Amino acid sequence: MKNKLNLEPMFSPKSITIIGASGGEGKISARPLYLLRKLGYQGSIYPVNAKYNEIEGFPCFQDIESLPRDIDMAILSIRATDVLPALERLAKRSVKSAVVFSSGFAEIGENGRELQQRLTEFVERTGIPVCGPNSLGFFNLKDKAVASFQQIEASRMDPIAFITQSGAFGTLTYKMLEEMEVGYQYFVSSGNEAGVDFFDYVHYFAEQEEIKVIGGYIEGARDMEKMDNAIRLCQHHDKPLILMKVGTSQLGANAAISHTSSLAGDSSIYSSYFQQRNVVQVDDEEELIDTINLFHKAKTSPKRGGAAIVTISGGAGIVMADKCEQNNVELTKLMPETITQLEEMLPAFASVKNPIDVTAQIIQDLDKLSGSIRVLLEDEGVEALVIYMQIGDPVAPVIIPKLSKIANETNKTFVVCWAGASEKTKEMLSAGGICWLPTPSRTIRALKNLLHYNQRKELLSEKNNIFAERLTNCTELEAFEGTINEYTGKSYLRTYGISTPAGNIARNVEEAIEAANTIGYPVVLKVLSQQIAHKSEVGVVKINVNSDAEVRSSFEEIMLNALKYDLKIQVDGILVEEMIGEGVEVMVGSIQDPLFGPCVLLGLGGIFVEVFKDSVIRPAPLTIEDAKEMIQSIKGYDILKGVRGKGPYDVHALAETLVRVSELCLDQKDWLQELDINPVMVHEEGKGITALDALFVGKQEALSLSR
Amino acid sequence: MKNKLNLEPMFSPKSITIIGASGGEGKISARPLYLLRKLGYQGSIYPVNAKYNEIEGFPCFQDIESLPRDIDMAILSIRATDVLPALERLAKRSVKSAVVFSSGFAEIGENGRELQQRLTEFVERTGIPVCGPNSLGFFNLKDKAVASFQQIEASRMDPIAFITQSGAFGTLTYKMLEEMEVGYQYFVSSGNEAGVDFFDYVHYFAEQEEIKVIGGYIEGARDMEKMDNAIRLCQHHDKPLILMKVGTSQLGANAAISHTSSLAGDSSIYSSYFQQRNVVQVDDEEELIDTINLFHKAKTSPKRGGAAIVTISGGAGIVMADKCEQNNVELTKLMPETITQLEEMLPAFASVKNPIDVTAQIIQDLDKLSGSIRVLLEDEGVEALVIYMQIGDPVAPVIIPKLSKIANETNKTFVVCWAGASEKTKEMLSAGGICWLPTPSRTIRALKNLLHYNQRKELLSEKNNIFAERLTNCTELEAFEGTINEYTGKSYLRTYGISTPAGNIARNVEEAIEAANTIGYPVVLKVLSQQIAHKSEVGVVKINVNSDAEVRSSFEEIMLNALKYDLKIQVDGILVEEMIGEGVEVMVGSIQDPLFGPCVLLGLGGIFVEVFKDSVIRPAPLTIEDAKEMIQSIKGYDILKGVRGKGPYDVHALAETLVRVSELCLDQKDWLQELDINPVMVHEEGKGITALDALFVGKQEALSLSR
Repeated sequence: MKNKLNLEPMFSPKSITIIGASGGEGKISARPLYLLRKLGYQGSIYPVNAKYNEIEGFPCFQDIESLPRDIDMAILSIRATDVLPALERLAKRSVKSAVVFSSGFAEIGENGRELQQRLTEFVERTGIPVCGPNSLGFFNLKDKAVASFQQIEASRMDPIAFITQSGAFGTLTYKMLEEMEVGYQYFVSSGNEAGVDFFDYVHYFAEQEEIKVIGGYIEGARDMEKMDNAIRLCQHHDKPLILMKVGTSQLGANAAISHTSSLAGDSSIYSSYFQQRNVVQVDDEEELIDTINLFHKAKTSPKRGGAAIVTISGGAGIVMADKCEQNNVELTKLMPETITQLEEMLPAFASVKNPIDVTAQIIQDLDKLSGSIRVLLEDEGVEALVIYMQIGDPVAPVIIPKLSKIANETNKTFVVCWAGASEKTKEMLSAGGICWLPTPSRTIRALKNLLHYNQRKELLSEKNNIFAERLTNCTELEAFEGTINEYTGKSYLRTYGISTPAGNIARNVEEAIEAANTIGYPVVLKVLSQQIAHKSEVGVVKINVNSDAEVRSSFEEIMLNALKYDLKIQVDGILVEEMIGEGVEVMVGSIQDPLFGPCVLLGLGGIFVEVFKDSVIRPAPLTIEDAKEMIQSIKGYDILKGVRGKGPYDVHALAETLVRVSELCLDQKDWLQELDINPVMVHEEGKGITALDALFVGKQEALSLSR
Repeated sequence: MKNKLNLEPMFSPKSITIIGASGGEGKISARPLYLLRKLGYQGSIYPVNAKYNEIEGFPCFQDIESLPRDIDMAILSIRATDVLPALERLAKRSVKSAVVFSSGFAEIGENGRELQQRLTEFVERTGIPVCGPNSLGFFNLKDKAVASFQQIEASRMDPIAFITQSGAFGTLTYKMLEEMEVGYQYFVSSGNEAGVDFFDYVHYFAEQEEIKVIGGYIEGARDMEKMDNAIRLCQHHDKPLILMKVGTSQLGANAAISHTSSLAGDSSIYSSYFQQRNVVQVDDEEELIDTINLFHKAKTSPKRGGAAIVTISGGAGIVMADKCEQNNVELTKLMPETITQLEEMLPAFASVKNPIDVTAQIIQDLDKLSGSIRVLLEDEGVEALVIYMQIGDPVAPVIIPKLSKIANETNKTFVVCWAGASEKTKEMLSAGGICWLPTPSRTIRALKNLLHYNQRKELLSEKNNIFAERLTNCTELEAFEGTINEYTGKSYLRTYGISTPAGNIARNVEEAIEAANTIGYPVVLKVLSQQIAHKSEVGVVKINVNSDAEVRSSFEEIMLNALKYDLKIQVDGILVEEMIGEGVEVMVGSIQDPLFGPCVLLGLGGIFVEVFKDSVIRPAPLTIEDAKEMIQSIKGYDILKGVRGKGPYDVHALAETLVRVSELCLDQKDWLQELDINPVMVHEEGKGITALDALFVGKQEALSLSR
């Protein structure tokens, strides 16, 4: 989609036509009209069906050609093969948007794929946005516009938009939120996304002033640029985007030759990218709805701090404290004044450590409960306050008004975890404008997302003020297919300012000895051959070679092992290099992902990257801050910071190297499929890094070379 | 508690007296009588209260002395200070058990602790079991015996017993399960456990024939032997024990000198021990109730296999497949016959890969749905079948009878995940004897517990047939306080059959040279001093010493560094040892935990044990199978199995070493506080291990030596 589609007529239509409409309330073709009437849609409705003259009191049109021109939105509930002809006829009547419920497109395989391709072409050609096909439809409760066949009550409307790539899953979240007394304003089931995709909707909702939170279920994005623009727009308007990303597919056909790519996988890129852009990624259905619920209701303290917990149950307090630790939520260390005031206020047996166990007896004296909460909200270190209550129907009508008062007065995050609440209690909580969640664990999990989002938002707004200068010049490197030898690879790295050991190619023992003497002992000898990707495993690398005699014997041994590996091996020479001193070995690389394009990868070196799966991958380009975050996010980061008297190591130089690789792989993306610099030796702080190996893989042959 | 308490009169009382009873239904003192009447308790009830002659139609006794003798159970709802005198008087009337609701004991701190101690002594002296104090009480619905002041409906009774160390939390689980149409038969809030503890109840319920599943909320156990006996009894009777263990406390006062103990922590010992004994440990409230629910309803296939998923929503299928991967639940690879049959049965666009997406259209043709399920249940690789449905009230009455038929016919695990079910649908599912759970993620999480429990059960029953012979002789080692030097430590290890390098103590350079020549070059030189715990960090270890001259210079350097470390250092000599070849470094150790006693620890060696927190700890004694499980459970296990052409390493010798350490630390538990063998070099397969260092810490001074 090159030109931005106008989704306004779709979501806020002044007129709607229903192609293939019918009466009643049960059939798919009957649902839209039924729901539009039920909700009291105020625009014009034009049913089309040759079989009827009238449907549910609406005059029925015999064909599309009889319709008035310029209708905002058309609902198509007809056979798949009839969809495109109908759309063409609607286009002639200047219809402005459409939604297609019909299935029978790409989801049924080969037969439907062509039909769907033609639908895509229709949208591209006409600029008419089409939701679907194979969609449950959508609704916008503000305008009472429902183009859907879901079972919806639409009894609540909150400033939330939800987009789903699975209609059924979306409906489930709607139902689950309804039980929490929360409702979406916008809901859209994006179906097969022939013409309008997930992030087109995100983009549109980000621009809707009244929408506070955008949620979604996503299996995959289709267009990196579109996704990135939409997500940046959410950031710009400070609209939290809360996504459940499902499907842990592999890089599949792009399976690749180097370790770099075998460690990648698109779900890890998504996670890393979402983290980078402060998209809130949730893990399951409950976390999704709880987080949406909390974000849309929560006030946000301008100051960063931790959480305070007030509980009537010691057990729930322990559970919440455990969950805080597991989820990296700081429990505020209370100020001495706070503790003193609480001690004066609460009975002797209450625990005034955070979590604060006020015991169930507090219910006899609710002013003390309110008082304690107010004291805690005044503590500077408290960003969010959670109060735990449970069941207790008899007391709810007395407690809830007090909590409601606090909720409305404070400008900090105030959450009530009311476990086992009855329907009546739930209604009272919602009516009181209180943000409430159902169990201790779920409450802390949602709170984690809120607090981390706020922290990250602040960090990103600082970072976004930093102008990111290029570290390297954009340089043309000679493109190739398949691999090149290490010597040339290292020269490419040096072009991008990445240090490599001093080295020379030797064609025979004498040249090797000469090279070694020029470089100075000790040296490293390695075979140069495009046929051996992992040299150290086949004995064609000799380190710590200390004399002319050792060069001689090593040279012979390497050549022998190379021939053992493959009698027909083609050898470009022996690389003689300076021996590089101590440091921490990491691996740095890049791959091209089908969606994200060039991505940069960092892993702890040696066998640990394999065994501990300790690596991180992010789409290029990287800023120096991105690179630092990547470094900090690997599990082995402590090794770089220094342990047991070793280190610290040059993390800044490593971050710069990541940025250089990011610039390299973006500049060369037309031909470069993969880059694997393994190991990169990170020296002590201030002493930089050295790339000890380099494997470049050009496109085309990347596949045939994979082992 | 030395003699086993008889809990029968407590849980199945033929007569009950209520001390401090009152009328009505609201007050704590009124609740038991109210609930006993409401439920229709059939035994005798004797209220005691000097203020009344009659309560709710029951003659009221003026004092305990007027009560008949041999009453089975007394409920005490009186002031804390009145509890003990009342119990003494009840004992004189030969009451057989009691429950104390009253708070004001250990939970209020110092003042209540003595009172509680006296209560403990009462139970020990009289053998009368007392539940509480500070307890919500308990119920046994089979006998309609309720000694509680909870809000309970008791509308359902399933073969489940639940024990909770937090009354409020327990009530919450009761409420949550009630919403899933499930009810406990036994429930007990154990309160402060002055006389009867958590595992006394587990023991009792494990012996109750009609109980199928035992669940619980536990903050901590009090007695290792009691816990272990109760858990083994559950295993013996094949009663799954499902626990939510909360509180991540530290070893606290036992903070210790070596790395071994700083890595330990009782919550990791609990987890490891629970895994060992096949106790199902859950992570949060939902997982707790879902797992209890699934275990009590599920049938269990005698054959081990994976899961098959049938779904009407592609999205839910993806979510469940993701969760299977995350939770290590195998999705069955279907047999070709199964696939063929499914293809014949299902529409072309359905996906017959597992998860099987039958699409929502299947609802038009339910025989196909039943048919597909039956085909799948006949696949040998399918141990459990999950079917996903959602909302869809109109179809529930048609579908549920068909599912019910399947559920009752099959002897495999059959679970319906019905998301967003209405109350009516829930009732129909339960009435149909169907095991149902509410969301895709929760379903798979509970299923994981069931499948893993079944696998582990089979494994344990095989293991339990192996007679575990001691590997070492029980030997007396000379006890000491604080530390001993490495040389003596290594001699202790050799006594237990753990290999160490050949070595000698040298008092001067000449002796060192002599020792080196006896051993043969290369050698290692180390200072021997009890004042330096981590030698390599202060430069008092020299490896790869190759000649007399190098011995001389190394000796001097070591002595210099030792003096630099502490001018007043006391040196026992220089240890000269053979240089040990290559291998993988691990650390093995033991600590004494206050609850679990001697525990054995294994970690990957070097800095990785610290940085990656890659260690595992289990209570001694260990069988060789336990030891192998420990080895397999560390993240770095792949390194031992061999990667990149290195290894495999001698895992069996390492397992034996763990067993030897287990025997050592149990034999010497009276004086040995900690043992730290770091590193243990694991050689290639068949070549054994070598302990390269040994730090023994005797009791008493362990604390003062901690850094």
